[in-house]
Amino acid sequence: MPSRKRDSISSLGERGLLRRIYARFSRTCPGVIIGPGDDAAALRVPASRALVASQDDLVENTHFERRWASPERLAGHLLAINLSDLAAMGEVRPLGCLVSAGLPRSLPASWALRLLAGLDRAAKRAGVAVLGGNLARSERIFLSMCILGAARADRLIRRSGARPGELLCGVGPLGEASAGVSLMRSGQPPKNHPLVRAFWEVRPQLKAGRCLAGLATSMLDNSDGLARSAEILAEESGVRIRVRMGEAPASRPLRLFCLARRLDLRLHQFKGGEDYGLIFTARRRDWPGLKRLLPQAYRLGGVEKGRGVVLEGTRRAPRSLFEHF
Amino acid sequence: MPSRKRDSISSLGERGLLRRIYARFSRTCPGVIIGPGDDAAALRVPASRALVASQDDLVENTHFERRWASPERLAGHLLAINLSDLAAMGEVRPLGCLVSAGLPRSLPASWALRLLAGLDRAAKRAGVAVLGGNLARSERIFLSMCILGAARADRLIRRSGARPGELLCGVGPLGEASAGVSLMRSGQPPKNHPLVRAFWEVRPQLKAGRCLAGLATSMLDNSDGLARSAEILAEESGVRIRVRMGEAPASRPLRLFCLARRLDLRLHQFKGGEDYGLIFTARRRDWPGLKRLLPQAYRLGGVEKGRGVVLEGTRRAPRSLFEHF
Repeated sequence: MPSRKRDSISSLGERGLLRRIYARFSRTCPGVIIGPGDDAAALRVPASRALVASQDDLVENTHFERRWASPERLAGHLLAINLSDLAAMGEVRPLGCLVSAGLPRSLPASWALRLLAGLDRAAKRAGVAVLGGNLARSERIFLSMCILGAARADRLIRRSGARPGELLCGVGPLGEASAGVSLMRSGQPPKNHPLVRAFWEVRPQLKAGRCLAGLATSMLDNSDGLARSAEILAEESGVRIRVRMGEAPASRPLRLFCLARRLDLRLHQFKGGEDYGLIFTARRRDWPGLKRLLPQAYRLGGVEKGRGVVLEGTRRAPRSLFEHF
Repeated sequence: MPSRKRDSISSLGERGLLRRIYARFSRTCPGVIIGPGDDAAALRVPASRALVASQDDLVENTHFERRWASPERLAGHLLAINLSDLAAMGEVRPLGCLVSAGLPRSLPASWALRLLAGLDRAAKRAGVAVLGGNLARSERIFLSMCILGAARADRLIRRSGARPGELLCGVGPLGEASAGVSLMRSGQPPKNHPLVRAFWEVRPQLKAGRCLAGLATSMLDNSDGLARSAEILAEESGVRIRVRMGEAPASRPLRLFCLARRLDLRLHQFKGGEDYGLIFTARRRDWPGLKRLLPQAYRLGGVEKGRGVVLEGTRRAPRSLFEHF
């Protein structure tokens, strides 16, 4: 057996870690029949509701680097990006989540315990039960979360409902998080730099999602950037999407970031990913009412007959800008 | 951008891979409202049933090595170990699964496509819908699956129900899979060696689980070995478990393996993990009826007042034998 470093998770052992997990997450939550610590969890899905499920991951050296990620922030981020997937389906009530953690044997025990504490805090704040999951030894950290929610099946908003003549709209930041990632990759920006916080402190748009049920004709979360989001809506709905960036919100720190790096602000906002706002389409006649319900919504262009994405001010449909491989 | 090797998944691209995934898994399945390709999936849980959910992973260099794992076998194994968690809860009907795959950029495209084909085949055979998941770039392969099923809440079998006076019982192999792992680690055994197949071709005990609902007083799947399983039942139920290996089944290849390596067969079977049979407790008076229903069940000892696990023929309660860290 390899030597166990005194402060590493191998000194806690799997069972030590599991005991802490069970102790932390075994509180009673509404709807939960069996929580962590058995072969499977069990929960009640409210009557006449469909189960909504999604899974999203954070992988070391792909989505974050250990030197710039605190475990608390990672845990909060993991839950937020998963909740964002529920928000993007419309009016979905989050129920619970399962989490797999792949952790290196040499990882400090304190790191793992802070991850648990961060997950606990974030889950409590969001009213989500941590139902179970898995622990595995892994050379690099990975965290995989499956999130479960409940919704009326006839209120779910898909990616395929956009029709010519409609508006393209958004809620949430555009380009702020990807600027934060650039700052973290290129140095050690202050932990509380607003662009760094824009990356870590994703606010899943659950309330906006609820407002948009019955109003948005298609929707998705903006995790891969507006360019890619528009492309997906166009492809799934069989339409062309024309993007106009004029109303897109841009914070002062983002403007300064683009100025300092000589980046075109609007192009940066069009391309940047990791924002987790919502991109959606809506009928023109619904816009005034929608704007009253959701004052932070903004217009981003329109839907036409055809294919692909056109960014106004450029000639070509831009090529895909975010590829994971 | 780093160079893209011609035959690697980076040449397919994330979108190319996603397109293949959607094409493969977007068939209609009973109960599925939204399948892969949206922000989240949606499905109907049968009325008056609880949702049962579990998550289990396969991590490169922890659970398998790439040189001895074919992608088809990995996919089948991933589904089987997850179904096993449902089986261990009793009478659970599998509904669907979500899969996260962390894949290296340099992985051959054919490997990823074979993984998909393997998952498709295994899911079809088991009647499980592949609902969605996530793709991420990762330096090492990991696969994380969340499995969803439905069950009557009052029929679920927990780990905490064992009472003094009851029998400890099992179904499924004991020690066969861990012998297969030893063979693979120490060389290149024939792909069809029965012990190697015992590891890869896990048969989730869903039928046995169904039979045992109402009969088993506590149950878990034997993924970490009988020693650990007995320890968990003892701890969760607040009892002592006395293990007698006399009735444990042992195949001829397993006997030969132990003979060749000068291993004590019974101790090897007691310790070995990765078998994914079921370990359970039952009232003595139920044993004859249980054996008629489930002829392949065997007795492994009994439940007493006290704590810990005693293996008959040894003095001390054995220390934990399977630690992931």
